[in-house]
Parts: sequence; structure tokens; C-alpha cells
Amino acid sequence: MNFNLKNDLYIRALLRQPTERTPIWVMRQAGRYLPEYRQLRAEAGSFMSLCTNPELACEVTLQPLRRFPLDAAILFSDILTIPDAMGLGLHFSQGEGPRFERVITSSSDVARLRRPDPSGSLAYVMQAVVRIRRELNGEVPLIGFSGSPWTLATYMVEGGSSKTFSKIKSMLYSQPETAHRLLDLLADSVIDYLNAQIESGVQAVQIFDTWGGVLAPDKFLSFSLHYLEKIVSGLKRSHDGHDIPVVLFCKGCNSHLEALADTGCDGLGVDWTISLNEARSRVGHRVALQGNLDPAIMLTDPRTIENQVEATLASYGQGTGHVFNLGHGITPEVDPNHMSILVESVRQHSQAWHQS
Amino acid sequence: MNFNLKNDLYIRALLRQPTERTPIWVMRQAGRYLPEYRQLRAEAGSFMSLCTNPELACEVTLQPLRRFPLDAAILFSDILTIPDAMGLGLHFSQGEGPRFERVITSSSDVARLRRPDPSGSLAYVMQAVVRIRRELNGEVPLIGFSGSPWTLATYMVEGGSSKTFSKIKSMLYSQPETAHRLLDLLADSVIDYLNAQIESGVQAVQIFDTWGGVLAPDKFLSFSLHYLEKIVSGLKRSHDGHDIPVVLFCKGCNSHLEALADTGCDGLGVDWTISLNEARSRVGHRVALQGNLDPAIMLTDPRTIENQVEATLASYGQGTGHVFNLGHGITPEVDPNHMSILVESVRQHSQAWHQS
Repeated sequence: MNFNLKNDLYIRALLRQPTERTPIWVMRQAGRYLPEYRQLRAEAGSFMSLCTNPELACEVTLQPLRRFPLDAAILFSDILTIPDAMGLGLHFSQGEGPRFERVITSSSDVARLRRPDPSGSLAYVMQAVVRIRRELNGEVPLIGFSGSPWTLATYMVEGGSSKTFSKIKSMLYSQPETAHRLLDLLADSVIDYLNAQIESGVQAVQIFDTWGGVLAPDKFLSFSLHYLEKIVSGLKRSHDGHDIPVVLFCKGCNSHLEALADTGCDGLGVDWTISLNEARSRVGHRVALQGNLDPAIMLTDPRTIENQVEATLASYGQGTGHVFNLGHGITPEVDPNHMSILVESVRQHSQAWHQS
Repeated sequence: MNFNLKNDLYIRALLRQPTERTPIWVMRQAGRYLPEYRQLRAEAGSFMSLCTNPELACEVTLQPLRRFPLDAAILFSDILTIPDAMGLGLHFSQGEGPRFERVITSSSDVARLRRPDPSGSLAYVMQAVVRIRRELNGEVPLIGFSGSPWTLATYMVEGGSSKTFSKIKSMLYSQPETAHRLLDLLADSVIDYLNAQIESGVQAVQIFDTWGGVLAPDKFLSFSLHYLEKIVSGLKRSHDGHDIPVVLFCKGCNSHLEALADTGCDGLGVDWTISLNEARSRVGHRVALQGNLDPAIMLTDPRTIENQVEATLASYGQGTGHVFNLGHGITPEVDPNHMSILVESVRQHSQAWHQS
């Protein structure tokens, strides 16, 4: 039993140990589709006041677990806490997504950046982790996370979300040394940050490379994958005698699955644009797979959701190594009852795929 | 010589006939990066007044050819002319992209739709084609185009651009028969429309499946590829004794290149997230390839552009079957001088790849 957890299915599936059924958690499971989340968010005033208050972050983390029998909790936070702690001034404006007050435009901007001290400007994250672990009381594991260096860099250089990524790509093509210095600093910062989360109590970590898929293949290898490898090698892979699984989720990167599996991570998140069957045949037994129902299916009806759950389980096939999830975050319009259907369908239909 | 063209490199490359160098045209080559386009657009008042006026559409089509020695012209129009001609009321609001006044939400909405008569509500397109052919006077070929059934359906059901495609995907999963009826009607409409363009004088056609990449793989095959196959089979592949090449461009669909090549098209457009080398090795000699410089490279500097052109030519390698292009449309911020560098670099460096 990992970490003396009452339910360690998620950890075992990532370590490719036998399980009785397929575990499930959902990206953004603590989020806007839940009325109790929307209420707390309204009271807090802003997204960042929720993130930076350990008590509120803990409460939001636990909300979906009170409703649904999920197999893991994920720390409520944002992928952009590191650049915020570097002093770039993260804020969220209505309908616009994340924005930074200060952006990185030159090599001198990069030279001025410092690795944040996880026990300093990121202490609020560690305090939330400690509190959530205490509240979870060993029911299910707690997942920590960070954005990938490439994904963090896109926001830091563009100043926010982007459609064309023209500024960061101009840097990458015209000033590759500057881009590499920024990415290397971010990789070191992510290592510090995730290791501090592990020491504070998270029992697995996931790295989100939301924007790896916008790069040409050779650029993905040198400007994103290289730094993911550095992080995987730099993480504490065990803590207090327990294995800490590492999951990489790179959206739109299905052409790079083999290279991602070769980083030495334990699991790969996959989006819905590849079948689990094909993904599994390509990565073999090296890594577990997490995913990959199209989030749009959550907007249909109970019968369709159940059918698509069965199809997803069948696509992965027999045996351990599958963590059920959506292929991207759950969207705000989803009926919470559909989340119940999803979780129940996975619990019920997955048992047949784990009989020896 | 195809069509008695003074320059038929583009046609020959698509038909995999020998060429002296690699031809080049650029998606959105008639567009906002050109000051003369912005001026005409301002005078016309709206994007649709440019599209629907044959004289203005002709003028805009020819603008980039006066500046750059491009190897093809592409009809200035929009991918959404068919649903507009079906009465949905296409308009463009500042910064929001295309919107429809009326959307398709039910099977009765679909039942009320009629195939547009290309010589009726789409006559302005045919008039523009006739005029452009006359003005081009055989210098380079004219490319006609349409949106794919799946891509047209996304806009018709969502009402405009979308991030999640939740409405059209709900229809696809919960009411697949309704979605198929809509897509089949659109496929017939695209066949009528492109055949009318061919009869009016376009010398090649391209079908844009801008949103094929948001579908799960099995859904792409049944809801997009199936209708692309129907169109390819239904098009007039020769006119007045000349071959009419057909190109499919499906953004984000690199995992389906083999299936796309099997439709019987002549060429495949590829985005920048796959190397031409890999794409060529996967489709073999069945089809030509068009692409695939990352459009963001056009925002860098002359030396980077030239280097990346050389890398792209080298990635395709020796011989015919490559039409140079960007991996997506040129963006409004591009310096027109960078377009000169691009075209000149392709003309200069591609000759070495065509010596027998």
C-alpha cells in the first residue's frame, strides 16, 4: 500500500502495478462547473485570491471529492505561479484569461529573473499542500503540478494567451540563446517548486505542456522536450520511502509520444485526438497512459457518456497502466450530474479489464 | 504546357511532373499584411463587400502578384460563402471573426437548408473567377477553393469561431444522423460550387478543413474524411482537356495523412508540426505535398527566413511533388519585405533540388 492510502489505485496504475479497476480523476475537477466553486470564487473576489489563500485553496481542492468518488485530488492552483513569483504580476481579467503586468522581451529581462524560493514567494502553495493532506486523511492521493518551461515561457513573453505565439517564436528563431537561458532558468525553478511540493506532501506530480503542440517537431525537441527531460531527472522520485510518480501532459504532441516516454516519466497524459490503443502500442510498457475522453462528450447525455467511457476503456484494453481522465480540462458548462455518470461508468465498466 | 500557361510550375508539381524549381504561393497572400489591401478594405467598408464585388475581388487577388513573383493566384473569397448562400447571414465583426445571424440547432433546421445554385446566390464568385482569369492572361494558374463540409458545419452550428466546438460535437455524439444529413448536403453543395468554379476558369482547387484536427480519430474518419472523399470523387478532374489538381489542407490532421492521400486527391497541404521528410515518407508518391514553414518565421528576420526556407526544401528533398507554402495563412503583422525574401529564397535555393 503506497503512503498508507485507503485508495492508492491512481498511484498503482501509474507504477503499472495491478489494480482492481481503472482509477479516475478529471483535469479541472475543482472548477467552474461546480456551483459551490462559483460561490467561493465570487466571495473571494478573484481567481488569485483563491489560489493564494491556503484555506480556500484547500476547500476548493476538496469540493469535487465530496460529490464524486474520485481516485485522486489535485492541488487547486494555477500553472503560472512560478512567473508570478518571479515578479511578473499575474492577474486574470474577465474573458481574457491570464495576463502578466510585466513581460519578457530581451536578454536583459531574462538576466534579471531569479529562481523563486519555494519557501518564500511560493510558501502559500506549500501551506495549501500541508493543509489538503491533513484534510484528505489518506483517503486518496494528492497530485501536485506545474506548467512546463516552454508553456511558462510562452505566457511570460507573449504577456498572456496567444493565437500565433509570434513573440516567443521570434525569440526562439532569432535569439535562440536568450530563449534557452529563459527555459533553463524555468526548468530549475520547476524542479525546486515540484520538489518542495513533494516535501510538503504531494504524492504525484504532473507537468502541463499546454502549448508544446504549436512548435515544429525539431523545435519541440530542443525547446520543450529537452527541459522536460531535465525536470524528470531532477525531481525527487521517492519521498519517505514511497515512489512519487511523474506524469507529463503535452497537449497536441501525439507525434512525440515515444520521445516523451523516453524522458523517464511514469505516465503520459494524452488528448483525445489519438486512440489509447494506438498510443499504447507506440509507448509499450514504458509508461502508463492518462486520458482521453473528448471533454465535449461531457456536454451530451448520460447514455452517450457511458458509451464513450466503455469505448475508451476498450481502446486501452486489458490490464493496468491506465488512469481515466478527459483529454483536456472539464468545461464550465458541464452538468455536475454528468460528472457523476462519468465516474460511475468508469468504476463499473473498468473492472472487466482488470481480471487476470 | 498546362492551359497554355506561361508559368505552370504549380500545376506540374501537383501532378508530380518534373519542374526546374519548387513553385511557391502563400495562403492569405492577398491579405492584411499588404497596405494596398488594407486601403481597399477600408474603402469597401467590410470584408464581405470585397468578396461579393467581382471587380474588387479581382483587384485584391492580383495585388500580391504585382509585388512578388508568385507561381499561383488564389481567388479572393471566404471559406464560408456556401452557408452564407444558404441564407445564414455571414458577417464579420471587428476582432471576433466570422459570425452567422442564423444558426443550425436541430434536424428541422437542417431539413430546411437547400443546396445553393452556384449561378444564383454564388454568381458573384464565378464572375470574379472569369474576371481574374482574363486579367491574369495566362501568367500563372488561378486556384479556387471551398471550406470542407466539417469545417463549414462547425461555423453553421456554433454560429462562429469556437474554442471547444461544444455545440457541433454535441450534435455529432447525440444526434449523429442530423450531423450526417448536414454534412452530406454540404458535400453536395461543395461539389456544385467547386465544379462551377472550374467551369468558370479556376485551374486547381483546394479544400480547407481548418477544424478537422479537433475531432477524435474515429470521428474524423466518419464526419470529415468521408465527405472529403465524396467531394474528391465528385469533382471535374479535367476541363477543356486539362487536368484540374485537387489539394486537401486539413490543419492539425497529421495523424491522418495516409487516409487523406487515399482519397484520390493530387496534393496535401501540411501544417508545420510535421517535417516534410516524415510526411513524404508516409504518403510516398501518391500525392504532392504543399507547405510548411511556420508562419511565425515570417515575423523574424531575413537571414532566419532564408535559413528556414533552405531547411524546408532540404526536408522535402530531391525531385518534384513539393509546392512551397506556409503551414497556415500569413499573418497581418508580417513585413511585406519578408514576403520578398521568402519568395526569392525559394526561387533561388530550390533549383538544386530539381537537377536530374
